[in-house]
Amino acid sequence: MWVMWSPLSVPMMDVTGKTQPFLSAHQYQVILKPDPGNPQGLYLKSLEAMGIDPGVHDIRFVEDNWKSPALGAWGLGWEVWLNGLEITQFTYFQQSGGQALNPVSVELTYGLERIAMALQDARDFKDIRWNEHFTYGDVQLQSEQQFSKYAFELADVDNMRELYRIYEEEAKRCLDAKQVLPAHDYVLKCSHTFNLLDTRGAVGVTERQGFFHRMRDLSRQVADAYLEERQTLEFPWLDKGGKQSVKSRKTSPPSYPKKPAPFLLEIGTEELPSGDVVDAVSQLEKALPKILKDLRLEYQGLQVLATPRRLVVSLAELAERQEDMERRVKGPPKDRAYDENGKPTRAAEGFASSTGVPVSDLIIDEFQGGLYVWAEERKKGLPAHEVLSDALPKLIESITFGQSMRWNDPSLAFSRPIRWLLALHGDGLIPFSYAGLTARPFTRGLRFIGGGEELAVNSLDAYFKILNDQGIILDQKQRMARISKDLVHLAAKVGAEVTPDQRLLTEVTHLVESPTALLGEFEVAYLDLPREVLVSVMKKHQRYFPVEKDGVLLPYFITIVNKPSGDGEYPELPLITQGNADVILARFADAKYFVKDDQEKQLADYLPALDLLTFQVDLGSMGDKTKRIRILVDMIAPLVGLTKDELAVTQRAAELAKADLASQMVVEMTSLQGVMGYYYALNSGEKEPVAVAIREHYAPASAGDSGPATKPGLVVGLADRLDSLAGLFAAGLAPTGSKDPFAQRRAALGLVSNLISWKINLDLAIVLDFAIKELPIKMSPETREACLNFINDRLHHFLRDAGFPHDVVDAVVSAQGNDPAGAYQAVGVLSEWVKKKDWEVTLDSFARCVRITRDLEKIHSVTKDLLKEKAEKDLYKALEKASSVEMKAGDLEDFFKIFTPLIPFITGFFDNVLVMHEDQSVRENRLGLLQSITRLAESTLDLTRLEGF
Amino acid sequence: MWVMWSPLSVPMMDVTGKTQPFLSAHQYQVILKPDPGNPQGLYLKSLEAMGIDPGVHDIRFVEDNWKSPALGAWGLGWEVWLNGLEITQFTYFQQSGGQALNPVSVELTYGLERIAMALQDARDFKDIRWNEHFTYGDVQLQSEQQFSKYAFELADVDNMRELYRIYEEEAKRCLDAKQVLPAHDYVLKCSHTFNLLDTRGAVGVTERQGFFHRMRDLSRQVADAYLEERQTLEFPWLDKGGKQSVKSRKTSPPSYPKKPAPFLLEIGTEELPSGDVVDAVSQLEKALPKILKDLRLEYQGLQVLATPRRLVVSLAELAERQEDMERRVKGPPKDRAYDENGKPTRAAEGFASSTGVPVSDLIIDEFQGGLYVWAEERKKGLPAHEVLSDALPKLIESITFGQSMRWNDPSLAFSRPIRWLLALHGDGLIPFSYAGLTARPFTRGLRFIGGGEELAVNSLDAYFKILNDQGIILDQKQRMARISKDLVHLAAKVGAEVTPDQRLLTEVTHLVESPTALLGEFEVAYLDLPREVLVSVMKKHQRYFPVEKDGVLLPYFITIVNKPSGDGEYPELPLITQGNADVILARFADAKYFVKDDQEKQLADYLPALDLLTFQVDLGSMGDKTKRIRILVDMIAPLVGLTKDELAVTQRAAELAKADLASQMVVEMTSLQGVMGYYYALNSGEKEPVAVAIREHYAPASAGDSGPATKPGLVVGLADRLDSLAGLFAAGLAPTGSKDPFAQRRAALGLVSNLISWKINLDLAIVLDFAIKELPIKMSPETREACLNFINDRLHHFLRDAGFPHDVVDAVVSAQGNDPAGAYQAVGVLSEWVKKKDWEVTLDSFARCVRITRDLEKIHSVTKDLLKEKAEKDLYKALEKASSVEMKAGDLEDFFKIFTPLIPFITGFFDNVLVMHEDQSVRENRLGLLQSITRLAESTLDLTRLEGF
Repeated sequence: MWVMWSPLSVPMMDVTGKTQPFLSAHQYQVILKPDPGNPQGLYLKSLEAMGIDPGVHDIRFVEDNWKSPALGAWGLGWEVWLNGLEITQFTYFQQSGGQALNPVSVELTYGLERIAMALQDARDFKDIRWNEHFTYGDVQLQSEQQFSKYAFELADVDNMRELYRIYEEEAKRCLDAKQVLPAHDYVLKCSHTFNLLDTRGAVGVTERQGFFHRMRDLSRQVADAYLEERQTLEFPWLDKGGKQSVKSRKTSPPSYPKKPAPFLLEIGTEELPSGDVVDAVSQLEKALPKILKDLRLEYQGLQVLATPRRLVVSLAELAERQEDMERRVKGPPKDRAYDENGKPTRAAEGFASSTGVPVSDLIIDEFQGGLYVWAEERKKGLPAHEVLSDALPKLIESITFGQSMRWNDPSLAFSRPIRWLLALHGDGLIPFSYAGLTARPFTRGLRFIGGGEELAVNSLDAYFKILNDQGIILDQKQRMARISKDLVHLAAKVGAEVTPDQRLLTEVTHLVESPTALLGEFEVAYLDLPREVLVSVMKKHQRYFPVEKDGVLLPYFITIVNKPSGDGEYPELPLITQGNADVILARFADAKYFVKDDQEKQLADYLPALDLLTFQVDLGSMGDKTKRIRILVDMIAPLVGLTKDELAVTQRAAELAKADLASQMVVEMTSLQGVMGYYYALNSGEKEPVAVAIREHYAPASAGDSGPATKPGLVVGLADRLDSLAGLFAAGLAPTGSKDPFAQRRAALGLVSNLISWKINLDLAIVLDFAIKELPIKMSPETREACLNFINDRLHHFLRDAGFPHDVVDAVVSAQGNDPAGAYQAVGVLSEWVKKKDWEVTLDSFARCVRITRDLEKIHSVTKDLLKEKAEKDLYKALEKASSVEMKAGDLEDFFKIFTPLIPFITGFFDNVLVMHEDQSVRENRLGLLQSITRLAESTLDLTRLEGF
Repeated sequence: MWVMWSPLSVPMMDVTGKTQPFLSAHQYQVILKPDPGNPQGLYLKSLEAMGIDPGVHDIRFVEDNWKSPALGAWGLGWEVWLNGLEITQFTYFQQSGGQALNPVSVELTYGLERIAMALQDARDFKDIRWNEHFTYGDVQLQSEQQFSKYAFELADVDNMRELYRIYEEEAKRCLDAKQVLPAHDYVLKCSHTFNLLDTRGAVGVTERQGFFHRMRDLSRQVADAYLEERQTLEFPWLDKGGKQSVKSRKTSPPSYPKKPAPFLLEIGTEELPSGDVVDAVSQLEKALPKILKDLRLEYQGLQVLATPRRLVVSLAELAERQEDMERRVKGPPKDRAYDENGKPTRAAEGFASSTGVPVSDLIIDEFQGGLYVWAEERKKGLPAHEVLSDALPKLIESITFGQSMRWNDPSLAFSRPIRWLLALHGDGLIPFSYAGLTARPFTRGLRFIGGGEELAVNSLDAYFKILNDQGIILDQKQRMARISKDLVHLAAKVGAEVTPDQRLLTEVTHLVESPTALLGEFEVAYLDLPREVLVSVMKKHQRYFPVEKDGVLLPYFITIVNKPSGDGEYPELPLITQGNADVILARFADAKYFVKDDQEKQLADYLPALDLLTFQVDLGSMGDKTKRIRILVDMIAPLVGLTKDELAVTQRAAELAKADLASQMVVEMTSLQGVMGYYYALNSGEKEPVAVAIREHYAPASAGDSGPATKPGLVVGLADRLDSLAGLFAAGLAPTGSKDPFAQRRAALGLVSNLISWKINLDLAIVLDFAIKELPIKMSPETREACLNFINDRLHHFLRDAGFPHDVVDAVVSAQGNDPAGAYQAVGVLSEWVKKKDWEVTLDSFARCVRITRDLEKIHSVTKDLLKEKAEKDLYKALEKASSVEMKAGDLEDFFKIFTPLIPFITGFFDNVLVMHEDQSVRENRLGLLQSITRLAESTLDLTRLEGF
């Protein structure tokens, strides 16, 4: 175990340059390497040692991951909450300096001031008791202020740059001389100096990227050199660590059921992120029927239940053994299987042995007119527990997560470490092993309640009873229902209600095993803050439910804690409630400070700061982006039809759209971008429509949100999204697979959905070209195409999600995907048409024209004189007539209006005319006629994509 | 309480640039501010908490003070020894940044590796257990090696200079902006960077001084700014600290003796430095008789006893009360004291009240012919305990030390903090207070033995019994005798003896209260090391007594520990013995490493490194000094008469004299300078006389040492000392008062004593001028005079110490102080002459000549024609005769040979001749004659300085 003590004399900030209003914070960092197998247990004991009784407080592990791109490092883990207050970062380091770590180490970062505040019930870090005579403020405030002043105002920029240069040079010198530890020291100094420069606001756009690149590069070199050094030393620390051994307890030999019996699998884990619980449940629900079928195990009543600490598969009934299996396997032809004396050849023997059937048992039978040797396999079903012993590890291994981690075995990954395994059939324990664990007849209860440690499970009934006794609601649906009911109940106590929020409800359901709702209160004065700020703080930071009445927030919140509460009871836990209230109070106080301070300036005053905020290295700063948006709105405006007033509003909104990104409140809570812009614009005396457009240009901010209600908001948003998509594709940053760090899917979807809901027909190819033109970098035609296809894909998804059939969407989008509003309308029409009873005829008529012509490379002209048969002349005439009708490109109603009358003539044509005439000119004339028909659908829909074509 | 954790990633070195072969060392620094009153007790408890049982181990507080001139900081305290191993630095900070500290704070610097080694019985820091799997070496060695390599070889000098520049500039920037804490941070960075530069060997002579000056300057500015800041804040931490209160215990009211009874005063202290114990004892021995006399207290049997923890005054008998006193005081004249009606005036009333005698009791008596009013005071003697209550604090306050410290009361100073006070007369406690302490009937026993804490003393007998029971030998003479006896006894056990060393014996006597001698052993192989190295390590570093037989060292040592051992018993304490042996082993191993490594090079190879070693900023490097010495020996040689061979040896020795200063062994132990030069010269193939001269040029190294045995050694030493004295005086660094940082007194004394013992007549004025000529700086005539006077003073002291009478020495030195050998001889002669029975006549004859002429401003010529009286003509003739005898300047034998015959003529002259004749020319002629006589003594002696003149 390594213990590091890092008193920070530099502002607490992450590499993105975020800073905190109160900078003083000491982190006590403990590295456990390798993962000792029970780091959470050890950690919780450390809290107890500090005087925090986990039985009294609400302690929770809330998903929180860590990443330092500048150091090529990341890890997964949690924030640990003490009554809602983050007191520790708990991280399983996965990578450092670009090297995958093996073994994985656990990092505990105790927030000393926070823990002290909690222990001492101090509301402000300054009030922490230093000793019996002094407060923390007495001792540290002076230092705090002076180092802040130095970092923010005094540090000489040229000197700091020079320091960085020297530190970097010394780091490289050390690396060249293979002295990796001093090199590492200097990399940390580089990072520290960068932070100082950044705090001074001295790091420009390109420079920042340069610094990051240099630090990442150095870190990687240090990591490589260190690895090499340790390799040379033959990893002297690796084997001495010792293995932890699982205590083996005596258990009686399992007795397996003789008839179908209930089955249970429990995968015990450290706290899973809420999203991962949902993912895992859905994967298990899909995987199990297939696996059980493959295993020939009959079952009934499959349920997948989950809490943050356990994934449970429950079967009401599972067969005691596999069904027997019979199967015939074809072997070689008879004449190759036996020699002239009828003796089996080596071919026969080989086949027999491969099937496990004795040669003598092979039989001869006919197959497609020949005689072959056959083996008849008969597999006796094995007991369920035997096959499950093999299958369960594979089942667990098959579960995948958006982001998974390693802990002990470097070849295994899961959302969070698995810490125990239990599988029962009837009351018999199914033996299996996974991830260094062996299934044992034990489960674990609710943390901190009585038997938080291992609890013996000697039967399946006992299992459910244990969990129930502990207050754990295993069934996520029940748990959610319970929370919903409690929310209603508690809100009603203050005559109010909780705004429904399914996403938060789902998340909270997966944050606790035994939910208890607590109603907390905060000072009415904070209701002056913008509603979005209050709601964001409560929901995003704290996972509290806001309480409101008639659409107006009340000074209450409801938090769901992980404590048992008997059915129908609403225990009051004042200590925990107060703790949570203190946290929200501190956050509101911070917000109030930010908002007040932000409003000292006009919104437009923040614009210069945007030049210091990188959008992307090749695309420049947010200031550069703002300038492009401003140009783009002028170009887009004529295409969407703005009034003169709307245009003025749009232009002003474009100028100010990103200004709030430089405000403290948005730096603190990015999700408030646009919202704060709205309030600050009003505060700065901007016209309300401008403020609204600033807010709305981000709409919809996420799936399910509504789009912009005003055209200026729409247009600024279009310009912003087009610039982002064009720019990021041009910079080679198109999303790949599951990676979409710049949220381009959301941008494209917003583009599509907004145009659809505003019913504005806009050719995305044209406006994308506007955006491309303004970029500071070039874009190849292929990339442009890829970008348009990407947006088309979003449209496709959008239309599918709207419930339209796949083929209908496909037919329309492939033809007119660049006009989302048009495509939406077309899909609506087409989906009605395909339901019509004579649709098959319609489609077939068109299809016949297409099928015979689609492989032609040339488009043939139609010469009236070459028309010979009546049917072809009739068709020609009908087509002439149809073509005279005006048709709006993309309008399916128009298309069908034109095409439907042609159907009888098409039928007549094919019934009476031989297209493939021997005279080439006649033949080509007829093909040209059919091509003219197929061209009618061009730019409107691709009928070949429809089912039945 | 403040706790600092300073992991050092830079080589451990002090500002003088000393480095350690193993650099890794972590110091855990604890600041106790203010002094809590029992810091030693708290510290010892911390050791117990670490598992060090003070009852089993030998723990000692050994004087060791700390000073950082570069930071304007110093403090007094101890090294704490654990079985001979230094494990902690314990310092009372007195000054920092040039500011006297108030309150004083206590700094405990725990040496973590050393403590761990002791706890784990590890012989090497690499063997310390890190945990159950790894050693300290496993974990730290890599880092150790790499950071050393970086510091010694890699760090880029230009970059480090630039870092220093930036840190300094930022520090100043912070100071300008009144941000003192970041400024302080940067000062530490400057210091760190300086250390790196120094380790790289990159700091030149003048540069080093420059760095020191800059750091000191910055430190002072930081300290001033900090003080100002705290003043502005009104010292918010000052009053909150709370006062420690002395537990009051119930005691019965004291009963004081009714007749003369024994008296005891105990001043209980923290461990006093050995020299201070000796000083205090001698001061108390002198002060007490005087004080008791002033107090009119009769006494018998005064003894001043002392251990490191207590100064004790014991009186076998002290009167129970003062003697009564009677005294007459003269008042105003009678006629002013009474009006015409015989009523007392205000003058009488005022006088009466001032004397405490009623007006009616005034009497009238005669004085010098007038009548005056008199008061007859009769003071009844007060009880002894009453007057002692006032006198004892003054007694303690009167004790002064070479260097004293403050701890609680900023106006009081003592050698080390006083922690308890006890004074008994008979069995009665004498109440008094000093330094925040009140005398109480308690003493303290031997540390760690049973009642190391307070022990009640209810009678005087009880006091001695308690100490005796604890094994404390209070009487320093008894303690020394006991140690001497034990030394003999233990050495005899291995058939050997201990070389007598009174200084070490005295020191050790004052390091312990209850001495027990332990015989330890070390590996025979180390006896290969030069004897001086072994002895130095044992004596200077460890205060061990070496053991030898027939002048050859044996592989044993004797250490005196602070543990009780019954009379006649020789307890064996294997744990402590082994601990001490381990320490010496480690030191010997280091020494062996140094010596081996040093000998890889030739002695001459160290010369270039001398250019990097400052002698003094204005006087250049040791390399420069060496060049001057080389020139000087050539100039001095002709004056002292060297053979050709001797000259060659002298020249070579001069070249190499200082080379060993750059060797590791001498850097580690400065006291071995010259000695190592001797060995390394031999190892380098130099002739033995050269090696000897190198060693001897430092002789005598201290009072009592013998001087050089060879002329080359003498001459190089002369040159070295002349250069130092001339140079340092020229640089304005003459010693003042008690300050003699460059040991110029010793240099001058060496000069004097060597010339005397070699009986070489040398005019110091001439050779000093040689030295002055070679200096890189100018010297004023006044300074040159001051320098010569300074040497004269040393000669004076030397001669006085040799037992010659003050006036005799004075008479000679004032006349021929520039020739020590001559003066020595002259003093010997004169001191015989003054004992002769007709000396008075001789002296008087000369005196008469002097007295009448000494105020003359002019020297008058003698013209034979102007001689009138017979007596003057006779004298003239006798003088002519005498002057014809050859007289060596300065030779007293010669002087008396010439002068004695003149005596009758001088007598005749004064009996018969009136010197002050009315005729000016006759008068001046006679005066001139007498002046001629007085001139005989010129350059030989100044008879006016003799007693009886």
